[in-house]
Amino acid sequence: MNRDWIREKILAAKEKKKLSWEELSKQTGISEVFLVAVCLGKAVPKKEQADCLCNVLALEPEISEYLQKPVDRSWDKQIPNDPVLYRFYEAFGVYGEAIRELIWEKFGDGIMSAVDMEISLEKVESSAGPRIKLILNGKFLPYKKW
Amino acid sequence: MNRDWIREKILAAKEKKKLSWEELSKQTGISEVFLVAVCLGKAVPKKEQADCLCNVLALEPEISEYLQKPVDRSWDKQIPNDPVLYRFYEAFGVYGEAIRELIWEKFGDGIMSAVDMEISLEKVESSAGPRIKLILNGKFLPYKKW
Amino acid sequence: MNRDWIREKILAAKEKKKLSWEELSKQTGISEVFLVAVCLGKAVPKKEQADCLCNVLALEPEISEYLQKPVDRSWDKQIPNDPVLYRFYEAFGVYGEAIRELIWEKFGDGIMSAVDMEISLEKVESSAGPRIKLILNGKFLPYKKW
Amino acid sequence: MNRDWIREKILAAKEKKKLSWEELSKQTGISEVFLVAVCLGKAVPKKEQADCLCNVLALEPEISEYLQKPVDRSWDKQIPNDPVLYRFYEAFGVYGEAIRELIWEKFGDGIMSAVDMEISLEKVESSAGPRIKLILNGKFLPYKKW
Amino acid sequence: MNRDWIREKILAAKEKKKLSWEELSKQTGISEVFLVAVCLGKAVPKKEQADCLCNVLALEPEISEYLQKPVDRSWDKQIPNDPVLYRFYEAFGVYGEAIRELIWEKFGDGIMSAVDMEISLEKVESSAGPRIKLILNGKFLPYKKW
Amino acid sequence: MNRDWIREKILAAKEKKKLSWEELSKQTGISEVFLVAVCLGKAVPKKEQADCLCNVLALEPEISEYLQKPVDRSWDKQIPNDPVLYRFYEAFGVYGEAIRELIWEKFGDGIMSAVDMEISLEKVESSAGPRIKLILNGKFLPYKKW
Amino acid sequence: MNRDWIREKILAAKEKKKLSWEELSKQTGISEVFLVAVCLGKAVPKKEQADCLCNVLALEPEISEYLQKPVDRSWDKQIPNDPVLYRFYEAFGVYGEAIRELIWEKFGDGIMSAVDMEISLEKVESSAGPRIKLILNGKFLPYKKW
Amino acid sequence: MNRDWIREKILAAKEKKKLSWEELSKQTGISEVFLVAVCLGKAVPKKEQADCLCNVLALEPEISEYLQKPVDRSWDKQIPNDPVLYRFYEAFGVYGEAIRELIWEKFGDGIMSAVDMEISLEKVESSAGPRIKLILNGKFLPYKKW
Amino acid sequence: MNRDWIREKILAAKEKKKLSWEELSKQTGISEVFLVAVCLGKAVPKKEQADCLCNVLALEPEISEYLQKPVDRSWDKQIPNDPVLYRFYEAFGVYGEAIRELIWEKFGDGIMSAVDMEISLEKVESSAGPRIKLILNGKFLPYKKW
Amino acid sequence: MNRDWIREKILAAKEKKKLSWEELSKQTGISEVFLVAVCLGKAVPKKEQADCLCNVLALEPEISEYLQKPVDRSWDKQIPNDPVLYRFYEAFGVYGEAIRELIWEKFGDGIMSAVDMEISLEKVESSAGPRIKLILNGKFLPYKKW
Repeated sequence: MNRDWIREKILAAKEKKKLSWEELSKQTGISEVFLVAVCLGKAVPKKEQADCLCNVLALEPEISEYLQKPVDRSWDKQIPNDPVLYRFYEAFGVYGEAIRELIWEKFGDGIMSAVDMEISLEKVESSAGPRIKLILNGKFLPYKKW
Repeated sequence: MNRDWIREKILAAKEKKKLSWEELSKQTGISEVFLVAVCLGKAVPKKEQADCLCNVLALEPEISEYLQKPVDRSWDKQIPNDPVLYRFYEAFGVYGEAIRELIWEKFGDGIMSAVDMEISLEKVESSAGPRIKLILNGKFLPYKKW
Repeated sequence: MNRDWIREKILAAKEKKKLSWEELSKQTGISEVFLVAVCLGKAVPKKEQADCLCNVLALEPEISEYLQKPVDRSWDKQIPNDPVLYRFYEAFGVYGEAIRELIWEKFGDGIMSAVDMEISLEKVESSAGPRIKLILNGKFLPYKKW
Repeated sequence: MNRDWIREKILAAKEKKKLSWEELSKQTGISEVFLVAVCLGKAVPKKEQADCLCNVLALEPEISEYLQKPVDRSWDKQIPNDPVLYRFYEAFGVYGEAIRELIWEKFGDGIMSAVDMEISLEKVESSAGPRIKLILNGKFLPYKKW
Repeated sequence: MNRDWIREKILAAKEKKKLSWEELSKQTGISEVFLVAVCLGKAVPKKEQADCLCNVLALEPEISEYLQKPVDRSWDKQIPNDPVLYRFYEAFGVYGEAIRELIWEKFGDGIMSAVDMEISLEKVESSAGPRIKLILNGKFLPYKKW
Repeated sequence: MNRDWIREKILAAKEKKKLSWEELSKQTGISEVFLVAVCLGKAVPKKEQADCLCNVLALEPEISEYLQKPVDRSWDKQIPNDPVLYRFYEAFGVYGEAIRELIWEKFGDGIMSAVDMEISLEKVESSAGPRIKLILNGKFLPYKKW
Repeated sequence: MNRDWIREKILAAKEKKKLSWEELSKQTGISEVFLVAVCLGKAVPKKEQADCLCNVLALEPEISEYLQKPVDRSWDKQIPNDPVLYRFYEAFGVYGEAIRELIWEKFGDGIMSAVDMEISLEKVESSAGPRIKLILNGKFLPYKKW
Repeated sequence: MNRDWIREKILAAKEKKKLSWEELSKQTGISEVFLVAVCLGKAVPKKEQADCLCNVLALEPEISEYLQKPVDRSWDKQIPNDPVLYRFYEAFGVYGEAIRELIWEKFGDGIMSAVDMEISLEKVESSAGPRIKLILNGKFLPYKKW
Repeated sequence: MNRDWIREKILAAKEKKKLSWEELSKQTGISEVFLVAVCLGKAVPKKEQADCLCNVLALEPEISEYLQKPVDRSWDKQIPNDPVLYRFYEAFGVYGEAIRELIWEKFGDGIMSAVDMEISLEKVESSAGPRIKLILNGKFLPYKKW
Repeated sequence: MNRDWIREKILAAKEKKKLSWEELSKQTGISEVFLVAVCLGKAVPKKEQADCLCNVLALEPEISEYLQKPVDRSWDKQIPNDPVLYRFYEAFGVYGEAIRELIWEKFGDGIMSAVDMEISLEKVESSAGPRIKLILNGKFLPYKKW
């Protein structure tokens, strides 16, 4: 039993039950982005979340236990080149310094946490076609001055 | 007259007038993140935006013209290491694949544009301290099938 | 069933039927470059295209379904060194900035989409030997100004 | 007198005369992409092209001579990150192997020359907005078998 | 007035007054590591700290104001090779995963903040010669589960 | 019998006995960070430590012998990107030069050994939540002057 | 049947027949460097060459067919570090620009083709020991001026 | 007086005297590739060569002395991207292992020296246009077995 | 039969016979560093050395034959990070240019061969503990001037 | 007054006095490699060494003071490519693991210090020409077991 094996197990169960992420999110009450990250092995759920997820997918309790263990969140490509992933990288390459200026002005010397952060994604229809609204909600962490 | 010289010119004028980005955004009607990106030389304003900006900051019209030219949006550090910038990079290293899964489910085979994209930033107060809400709103671009 | 297995399946069927890409393109009505990219797992066909392809190659319907799923378009070598691939890379290293200047002049501040893009390839005979005519047809995407 | 100085000289003359690349191309009879590459210092014109260019821009004959010298065509960023340049790189990362398959099928074992190559760019209007048609026309070079 | 100029200004004033970092720390009441980081331009002091520092070093008030601005904390060598700096990097290359295991066991799924962190350094004499005791005191940040 | 196999063996035995690292440290008298590093294959115990560890975990004596052999302490990612590991790297990217300044002032020209070094980790409760106190205790090594 | 399998097949047949490359070259009439490159999977022979090679080595005709297919000529180490391979790399790092100057002077603006190129290697005895004479014979390709 | 200054001095003198490398080689009796390498600062001449070179170019004797000093032969781009330089790199990426096989067969375990090496370049006319014949003549260095 | 298999074979035989490298060196008459390099597959012995080694270790004659074949001496980590290996790298990063200065002064323009080189290692006791004396003895190779 | 300025100062004084490193070493009593490293800014002398050096070279006492300050020993090229420097790097790439095996056998789990290390260089004449004998004498540092 390891991360890859569990990941395959979960995706197979989801496929077999013909559940979309959206439906799985509704049935488990786990937020969508977080739910997918948990299933891909890039996030760690609370006990009740893990239990519920295994319940809905009819997976054995050992998987729930495994999912609750802390996880190495490393990724492979330091510079991503899949086009979907690259666009996020590019957006912050282009606008990152501008965003930092505004964080500095509105919050002071500190960062936006990538740990105490929630992410959500919405579909917004427009006349020119659908748009993706991606919301990052992270705690501001002021730099310690000691 | 080049990008660096203009950038210094604008920042000095803003400092002299003791304008915050927020105030400058209000006086020019240009959205905050976009406004800062324009001033840092990472975005190109519309003619009326550039004119208005130069007007408010009392800068010569040549600067407005220069600002309207297309710009090389390259950045230096392929892997950013300033902690503020790194956190954005990390957020997508950790959650990028989960977000991609949801884009695929909700929109199909395509990407979130980093060109037809608006970004905004809000301050959200919470009992545990302020949070940063960063909203990326990008057009979904379906892959051409030909 | 995964991408590599399917790729081998398709190439074997094509070889067995002694079909060239050109013939397969004609029989399926799918454009050549796009057809090959689909078979190599770097592009996603429409339902009717996938069904037709599996039909012509006498492959099971599950393969058609799998082919229609969105795909990770990552590639391995950030700097390609196979000579055929390198020449494309070099052409844009040498002429890329010149092309960008012309895009800026003719279209304004924006990019040539690599997502809403069609590519085709023709053989052109000349007295000094055959030439390759490679046509990239991509939508111009103007930068959002907000 | 060096490449950078000449580049600035040419761009200033072009700006002063309010000539677009298109007009300069027409007046000199030099193809657009090639003309810009020459002016940016990434290509070397024929004597008559260089003389004509200097004539039209009213530049001294020494510049024409300098332009005719062979040039180092190196570029800085091994992995480009300006969004315009990156899209070309991505297009070949995604579709490069498919194109190579077709070159192999139609031409045999060899490459598309990046030296004996012409590039042109056209604007194509469509109902969904303008498209960029980029044409690379390169000699096929078969691998020597000895 | 920029970071480098201010850094030189501060170091020259410190040298002229023949103050050690230890003495400067005592006179300003600013913790040693933080004090040096501020002077090197890698940390941002509180207003009273900056004022006091400029006071002790007899520097103009503008420098105090400048020091209080948020700062880009980037560093040059992604893999440091000065032997002093490299040893820190190596220590975490070798023991980092072991430390992570213990953080996971004692604190759960989360990280040790590098932002809400204090660092101090002590000299410890031993029979085999002096030892350096380096203390990193960082807030534990649990991963958000949402 | 190799490092990976032994590592799995040890972790499985520890899991089966439901021992935490803290308990295992107490039962073996081996310091926590060092104990974990030994079990992960990044450190080499003394004979009595290895024997005791195998004893407590009921592992065969051959494992004790193997553990006492010198080990290659290489690591994979030159720039770590797991968030826990990255924070250590970042802390020294930001504060490393400040720490070096203080080592130079207090100890002279030399380094803090990463070989003759002990590391320990403590949990410190505070009103704002738990903090991690990480103590690196390394011998100062003066540069040989010959 | 794939490249690696075929490579092993060929080398084993050559070893079994106790043929040197020199003898194999004589028996097949294929030039030495090209012959070895074909056997290592870095070059593609003509039909008659492939047939002859398989004949001499008593290999099945399918191998001849496979050998005639175009091949990906990628290599693994962007910067080679085997000492034999590195010396070639170093020779061009040191003398490459000098050679380019002479190509420019004698041939004009263009390159030495690495595709239409023959390589041969001779042993030259000298009083100070044997020398290697490596001859690269490549077509000059002038840059297209269009 | 430094390498760059001397390089410019030499190139200017050569240009003023309208000497080609070929003529300079004849007048000084220094082999062409070596001569250019000396002038570019990538090789060190013998005293009589340096004196003769300065004589022919009417340069002061101090330059001759400077040229005779050993030189750092570093180069900038670990992976060259100027097309002329890249082709050499590619030739050895593709054929390097084949050449190594032949060195091993004909000479045994050792390398071709890049230090005790002479390089020459010839123009060879052919019906299909001129060819470049590049000859590397290096001493075989057997590996010490001790 | 390949390098890795042989390496394991040799190490197992050495372990079974409880021979140290020192003893094996004495019994075979092969110098220690060279002996280990041969066994690790990074050096090639003479016939009599290989035969003797296989004799002492009671290995089959085929292994002796295999050991005598030339070997690819590549290594994996361009920048080593195991602490033992890194210190060698660091020593030459810090003192390399100083050593080069002295080679230039004492020997002239040339290099210290890494091919015609012997390495030995001695243990030297001192009051402050044992020291490692590592002796590199390499032929001076003067640069060819042609 | 900074490192580069001082380096130039020292080298100029040495040149003016026509002193070789060997003579300077004798007159100052400082070991050769260390002396050169000090002058290049890669090592820090003792007070008496620095004073003596400045005395012999007739340099002002401020330079002696500056030389005694600790120094950043960083180097530029992570992978050196000057041929002299590269050979050292290659020697340890090829033989490093063999040397490590012997350190482990003769000394146990630990490293050879690159800080408490002396290096010397001798010229050894042989019938086949001069050889360089490079001696690294470093303290063995056993890994702390705690």
